[in-house]
Amino acid sequence: MASNTFGKLFAVTTFGESHGPAIGCVIDGCPPGLAIAPEDFPHDLERRATGRTRHTSARHEADEVEILSGVYEGVTTGTPVALLIRNTDARSKDYANIAAQFRPGHADYTYWQKYGIRDPRGGGRSSARETTMRVAAAVVAKKWLAEKYGVQVRGYLAQIGDVTPRAFDVDNVEWAVVESNPFFWPDATQVAELESYMDALRKSGDSVGARVDVIADGLPPGWGEPIYGKLDGELAAALMSINAVKGVEIGDGFASVAQKGSLHRDEISADGFLSNHAGGILGGISTGQDLRCSTAFKPTSSLRLPVQSLDTAGNVVEVVTTGRHDPCVGIRATPICEAMVALVLMDQALRHRAQCGDVGEVSPRIPAKADPKKPDSGKPDSGKPDSGKR
Amino acid sequence: MASNTFGKLFAVTTFGESHGPAIGCVIDGCPPGLAIAPEDFPHDLERRATGRTRHTSARHEADEVEILSGVYEGVTTGTPVALLIRNTDARSKDYANIAAQFRPGHADYTYWQKYGIRDPRGGGRSSARETTMRVAAAVVAKKWLAEKYGVQVRGYLAQIGDVTPRAFDVDNVEWAVVESNPFFWPDATQVAELESYMDALRKSGDSVGARVDVIADGLPPGWGEPIYGKLDGELAAALMSINAVKGVEIGDGFASVAQKGSLHRDEISADGFLSNHAGGILGGISTGQDLRCSTAFKPTSSLRLPVQSLDTAGNVVEVVTTGRHDPCVGIRATPICEAMVALVLMDQALRHRAQCGDVGEVSPRIPAKADPKKPDSGKPDSGKPDSGKR
Amino acid sequence: MASNTFGKLFAVTTFGESHGPAIGCVIDGCPPGLAIAPEDFPHDLERRATGRTRHTSARHEADEVEILSGVYEGVTTGTPVALLIRNTDARSKDYANIAAQFRPGHADYTYWQKYGIRDPRGGGRSSARETTMRVAAAVVAKKWLAEKYGVQVRGYLAQIGDVTPRAFDVDNVEWAVVESNPFFWPDATQVAELESYMDALRKSGDSVGARVDVIADGLPPGWGEPIYGKLDGELAAALMSINAVKGVEIGDGFASVAQKGSLHRDEISADGFLSNHAGGILGGISTGQDLRCSTAFKPTSSLRLPVQSLDTAGNVVEVVTTGRHDPCVGIRATPICEAMVALVLMDQALRHRAQCGDVGEVSPRIPAKADPKKPDSGKPDSGKPDSGKR
Amino acid sequence: MASNTFGKLFAVTTFGESHGPAIGCVIDGCPPGLAIAPEDFPHDLERRATGRTRHTSARHEADEVEILSGVYEGVTTGTPVALLIRNTDARSKDYANIAAQFRPGHADYTYWQKYGIRDPRGGGRSSARETTMRVAAAVVAKKWLAEKYGVQVRGYLAQIGDVTPRAFDVDNVEWAVVESNPFFWPDATQVAELESYMDALRKSGDSVGARVDVIADGLPPGWGEPIYGKLDGELAAALMSINAVKGVEIGDGFASVAQKGSLHRDEISADGFLSNHAGGILGGISTGQDLRCSTAFKPTSSLRLPVQSLDTAGNVVEVVTTGRHDPCVGIRATPICEAMVALVLMDQALRHRAQCGDVGEVSPRIPAKADPKKPDSGKPDSGKPDSGKR
Repeated sequence: MASNTFGKLFAVTTFGESHGPAIGCVIDGCPPGLAIAPEDFPHDLERRATGRTRHTSARHEADEVEILSGVYEGVTTGTPVALLIRNTDARSKDYANIAAQFRPGHADYTYWQKYGIRDPRGGGRSSARETTMRVAAAVVAKKWLAEKYGVQVRGYLAQIGDVTPRAFDVDNVEWAVVESNPFFWPDATQVAELESYMDALRKSGDSVGARVDVIADGLPPGWGEPIYGKLDGELAAALMSINAVKGVEIGDGFASVAQKGSLHRDEISADGFLSNHAGGILGGISTGQDLRCSTAFKPTSSLRLPVQSLDTAGNVVEVVTTGRHDPCVGIRATPICEAMVALVLMDQALRHRAQCGDVGEVSPRIPAKADPKKPDSGKPDSGKPDSGKR
Repeated sequence: MASNTFGKLFAVTTFGESHGPAIGCVIDGCPPGLAIAPEDFPHDLERRATGRTRHTSARHEADEVEILSGVYEGVTTGTPVALLIRNTDARSKDYANIAAQFRPGHADYTYWQKYGIRDPRGGGRSSARETTMRVAAAVVAKKWLAEKYGVQVRGYLAQIGDVTPRAFDVDNVEWAVVESNPFFWPDATQVAELESYMDALRKSGDSVGARVDVIADGLPPGWGEPIYGKLDGELAAALMSINAVKGVEIGDGFASVAQKGSLHRDEISADGFLSNHAGGILGGISTGQDLRCSTAFKPTSSLRLPVQSLDTAGNVVEVVTTGRHDPCVGIRATPICEAMVALVLMDQALRHRAQCGDVGEVSPRIPAKADPKKPDSGKPDSGKPDSGKR
Repeated sequence: MASNTFGKLFAVTTFGESHGPAIGCVIDGCPPGLAIAPEDFPHDLERRATGRTRHTSARHEADEVEILSGVYEGVTTGTPVALLIRNTDARSKDYANIAAQFRPGHADYTYWQKYGIRDPRGGGRSSARETTMRVAAAVVAKKWLAEKYGVQVRGYLAQIGDVTPRAFDVDNVEWAVVESNPFFWPDATQVAELESYMDALRKSGDSVGARVDVIADGLPPGWGEPIYGKLDGELAAALMSINAVKGVEIGDGFASVAQKGSLHRDEISADGFLSNHAGGILGGISTGQDLRCSTAFKPTSSLRLPVQSLDTAGNVVEVVTTGRHDPCVGIRATPICEAMVALVLMDQALRHRAQCGDVGEVSPRIPAKADPKKPDSGKPDSGKPDSGKR
Repeated sequence: MASNTFGKLFAVTTFGESHGPAIGCVIDGCPPGLAIAPEDFPHDLERRATGRTRHTSARHEADEVEILSGVYEGVTTGTPVALLIRNTDARSKDYANIAAQFRPGHADYTYWQKYGIRDPRGGGRSSARETTMRVAAAVVAKKWLAEKYGVQVRGYLAQIGDVTPRAFDVDNVEWAVVESNPFFWPDATQVAELESYMDALRKSGDSVGARVDVIADGLPPGWGEPIYGKLDGELAAALMSINAVKGVEIGDGFASVAQKGSLHRDEISADGFLSNHAGGILGGISTGQDLRCSTAFKPTSSLRLPVQSLDTAGNVVEVVTTGRHDPCVGIRATPICEAMVALVLMDQALRHRAQCGDVGEVSPRIPAKADPKKPDSGKPDSGKPDSGKR
């Protein structure tokens, strides 16, 4: 229930400040019998990491994950899995000059108003560094979801500033393309253009926002809890809790406002749903179709361009940020969005089997074909018991 | 923690089906000393109710609130406040013919997949009838927020289908106009046009979506809990949990994606913030400015127009809905959105004083002027103790 | 998480005051497919009720349960089950004269100190009337536990004042005897003696305490969550939350203090455990043996015998209670203790299958014979799926 | 909500196994402005530690606490406080021979039944090593409670085996005596006798249980939440969750059963309560008197004396424990019991001010004199704001 814990049954508690000695998390409620090793983490942590391309900020962290507990002979035991990452490249002097100032668009002002004290080094707890542990925890969730249910959670960048993908089919995302460029961009023909766009942006000293889409496929129907624990409600909370997020959509999102009901409602044929305007959720519960959500990231506020603000004494000051920052924080937010979706799904999967037994147990199901355009997307439930992983 | 409870400290548990004997809620954690009477509820319940204009569905419910507990001699005692409303106009025969069919765009299919059983009468638990108790519970929250902190939570309709307000200043919403027309529309000059629009829509048998904006003013800085209990994260969950919602925005929302950082970040002058792109929240904590959020409602799926679907045996059927339904469910969603915002604020207010003491206690604050364009919006904290209401 | 909700997954929220219009509860998280009818409740409610014998207080309540939601065609649907009981025999005038006084040994003083206000009618929320809804909610839990796992939860009175059962074998409680006398007493030869004891006590105007033992049999091994959600920890909380309880023991309880380890530790043979000093719990997790716990009830404080106290103005007053009260509240606490044990087990059962899958799924188990002295006590898991009850 | 987290608002999540790389905790919800340094921890950690006298087990851990987060310039910031202790003296070979055996009286059997896997090294998660972090977290709670409210939480040993203190006044515990002997024994005249008793016990290879009493003084009235969040209910859960605990009492506990109501109910005079049979709690809420609770510890089950058991294949084996173990685990449980009481009080203090404002805010209080025999025990509320510590 405390605010640094995410999830009800697969409960992830994170801690740590940007420039403190370490960041970490405790995963409580993990099913026993899942193989977890330090080698599982680097892939997603590097996708999220700063300093990987010239388009993201210059901080270089090794992000080496130490598993402190909950794993015995390489397998989860059902007790809390604690993960620790030491901070190694924390240059606090970069921030010393603005310790007493409130950077506009940042949490400086509000933390100070709330707590009467704040750790100014690198944004302290409000830094995007915190999202590292979301990604680390989600490595465990992604692995379990894939092994037990065949669920895959993948994201891509759907907009940078006013640039959107040109040749792009949301029903057939080319994931190899997404993973092969530094922008998680689904249209390979635009990568060079984006490089130029970002270079120009960086030179200008300004920043832009981004839109991240996440698709989860292989989801069984039945996950999600009405009324206030709806799958879409928890996805919204999860995604909105990421730094710099200003909007969340499920399925057609805000475009639904101007749609007609006769268009929006997804017809069902003998072969399954004929469209997916709903984004794979009805009444807060998964339909078995692809889960689709979008997240809006604001442009970063830490700019070389001066801006008016106050200091803690109430005086007007001019703030210029010279530290390391991304001109578009949304780019490396892609794995963070994936992580939050995976954490929500993991938690809902456990909650579903608590109340209703495991997938398929309550009632014989209509063999719902998730999406007729993508006959291979609806992987059958593996039906593997938890202990099958050992 | 259970999914029919909303809020951590001001915890509202709702129950009831559309055509069951009654709907109700239990409010746990209400501060003692607040005057509450049956007369407090009809105003907002009528704003939400069906059957008030020809533009919403024809169900007529008295919605009489019985206070079952937690109030002694007209004042809350700190024990659970239970509210009960009997269902009186539940015509289940309207729905009998589709009990075994899955209405596309509805929760029929997913409830059945999850639970293996569903109450088909009027949508059962997934009916919008459930939102009645959200509004009722929020009457208590709104009253406490107003009395203790001077906070007001008000909404208006910002879009129906593709129609948007013409003459409209978000910094100076004319609330009297909003309350004087059946559409909660902020531009009085468009009401006749909307009447025609809705009449045509109803005749066509189709439906459209809507966008609802909510503004809360008078908010002190400091409410909201990083990291996973962020004020915006919980607003997103709260709003997305309303039936038919497909998107949530805070402040500039998805428009932030195409904005430059130099525009989006809100400068702070000696007189307070100079703009409010953030929507009154930074780092998940209130800034003291107006809180602004938007919610996208999909078009209702219950239409006279036939649609293909399945029955519970897996056969293809044609579904036609002949029961009472709104051609635009978003219209009467305005008070529901207000309710969810009020419930989130109430809960966060209590959580803030749990950790940090009451507003203003932790540190002397900069006298933040919330919004220089609206010098009267930032009502000073009343500082009234809870017991002051008796 | 709020304090009037019990349980994490099988979450029971109760409300209502002794002399308010009604008491009730909302059960959230109930598995779907369980048959529940109004006829299920009277048996346990009558066991708990006041006014049944001359040895308990004279209040006569019909205790008619109305099922308001969550049940469709006689079967739970997975949505909240709300139960309501109207108060009919609330004679508030009995208490009017002590509204401004603090009855020693009662919650009057502390409620007033905490909330600054209290409902004095019949003790308000602090009345034992509240326990009615615990018993009602537990009817649902007991039924599910029995049908799905063969678990039975039964209690008896193990001490009244200084009287204890004479001929009594804890391994072979004669439940028919327990249910056939008004004291839930396991030794039929003492009933007449207890009648005389209670008559003398009532004449004296004084009261005594009682000890209630509860045994749950048929429990599978594996229920309970280390570390802070231990089965025994939650039983302790559950039982201590009952009005007038001052102590809780698991297994040998306080007698363990003077025991040697070589005696206390329960040996395991090829036929199962050879003793049960632990009370069926090790490391916070059920062993599969009988679960055994004891609860100490203090003597009621509402007596005809005068006692010194204060009024709300701080003046010394003499308090004499003339209302209806039990000379031994512990007698009818037996079904309340059973109820709390059942609620804990139900919640833990759901939590277990959330993390580990259903009973027996994680690993092939040693065929643990629960208790060699009682070869019939360890009913095999029925293995019936939830949906099997429909 | 997860089971390795304790507390609702002051939420402590612990992790770590006895012989894993480290143990640690995350304290979420700590009020800002509290001075915390590594030097605050050794006092209580040493009181709990093994290896300090020849009467406790021989493991030697440095127990050096590293503060990983949540503290800036020596002061809590309101963000999660993570504490880490590396395990340095973990001799796993001691346990290798019993990895496949279930030690009677231990969690071996039940962990294996629940999870299908267990970490056998030193008992893994079920080891008393876990309690180290309870004590560490409680250092923070004790400090805040003392600084803000003048609350002190102190324990002593009230029984070892069948030995009880001779000359002993529960109303005037000589705390200096308690802290000056290795048994936390309140009667200095018996220390030599206890030394002999323990020496003989160790030689015999057997073990005994113990009773620990904890007294908290300075408590204001009003802490505790009816109904299921009662102060005594949460104390029972907290204490019962400690390894080896089999019973919990509040005030007179099980002795209440044989008491008369006219004795048990605590009269109130103009000078305050005249007795404290209730143990400082009525209706689940603190009275302002001394809080008194007792905890029963079973004798440790790890003995040199052989015992029959099973191995994981179901074969009968003879188990002999040769590792390091205490002949009376209850001795060093004293600071653990204090810790759990402090954590409960801290959490309830925050919850009280969430709902009712800070102590004394709701209503002018009767100047309750906690205990007329101990005129100095009821320290007045310091009334210091949270920010006063900076």
